[in-house]
Amino acid sequence: MDRRQEILEAASKSFSLFGYKATTMDQVAKIANVGKGTIYTFFENKEILFQEIVVKLILEMKLAAEQEIETSRPFQENAHNVLMKILQFREVHQLYAKLVEEEKELRTPTVQTMLIRIEKEIVSYISEKINIAVDKKELCPCDSELVAFLLFKSYIGLVADWGETHDSELSEERIAALFRDTIFKGLLP
Amino acid sequence: MDRRQEILEAASKSFSLFGYKATTMDQVAKIANVGKGTIYTFFENKEILFQEIVVKLILEMKLAAEQEIETSRPFQENAHNVLMKILQFREVHQLYAKLVEEEKELRTPTVQTMLIRIEKEIVSYISEKINIAVDKKELCPCDSELVAFLLFKSYIGLVADWGETHDSELSEERIAALFRDTIFKGLLP
Repeated sequence: MDRRQEILEAASKSFSLFGYKATTMDQVAKIANVGKGTIYTFFENKEILFQEIVVKLILEMKLAAEQEIETSRPFQENAHNVLMKILQFREVHQLYAKLVEEEKELRTPTVQTMLIRIEKEIVSYISEKINIAVDKKELCPCDSELVAFLLFKSYIGLVADWGETHDSELSEERIAALFRDTIFKGLLP
Repeated sequence: MDRRQEILEAASKSFSLFGYKATTMDQVAKIANVGKGTIYTFFENKEILFQEIVVKLILEMKLAAEQEIETSRPFQENAHNVLMKILQFREVHQLYAKLVEEEKELRTPTVQTMLIRIEKEIVSYISEKINIAVDKKELCPCDSELVAFLLFKSYIGLVADWGETHDSELSEERIAALFRDTIFKGLLP
């Protein structure tokens, strides 16, 4: 493994464990077992290092989402599986989960900016899939960007926020049935 | 106006201006122009005073929502108007807006609990309206509690959160059209 890659992995580890704000270039150097000067030959500052790691996170998430898609299945099934995968990612992926927590607890501006970027990538990914389904006449023509935003926000509301205000978790079947009977049913031709 | 009412209004003013955490019984006494001992003859502590004010806020909001309903109009139109009214309340009602802000900035536990209570009241209010519409065969039978939660969460997402991640506001027409073409369309028989 080359030096650059080692530094990226060390930084990713540090951001995942301590968050963005509490991570220093010194710490990254220690974890990567390189001199601090070496880091600066590859990355100008902590923010640029962070950006590269977030871009990698987005790519990973898209790959994971893509694996949920089976072209033989109806749109709503694929969409449901993709959205559940993304939310699972948001909860169990160490770095993503840490960033969501840091944003809530400390409202670190750089983290807020990056979470918005991740969210925009997710929404534009879902929006593309909707456009493809509309072209194939699987769905009615619609305001795909807004529908994608609605889907993402309502899945977060149901999967992540429900637990904050209710004692019991919703079963995945109940969530799937809800979306099948409302948003997806409305989108069908 | 009686003493008890004066104290309630003073407390409501203080909570609206300074938030729950920063409000003290001393402050409320000063604003109400009564001795601190007088407050305790009516309200045991700050939390109980707060509870009574939140109950009043919920009542006010329900009245405002009720005024948006015209029984001659289709369900989706009334639901849209009610939800927009509730969100407007959430943004412009001094006390409600202050509590949302305080929860975000300071995560005061009592405020979190009260916001959850307000949210539950809103969701159960919408859920009742859905049940009535289902009984009148205006809507398909559905998981009304979950549909109400979905509607509330997605309206918050579209009206309040969109602005956080996008430069331009969404027009009310675009929001209305989105819900008409997705969730409401799905709910129609």
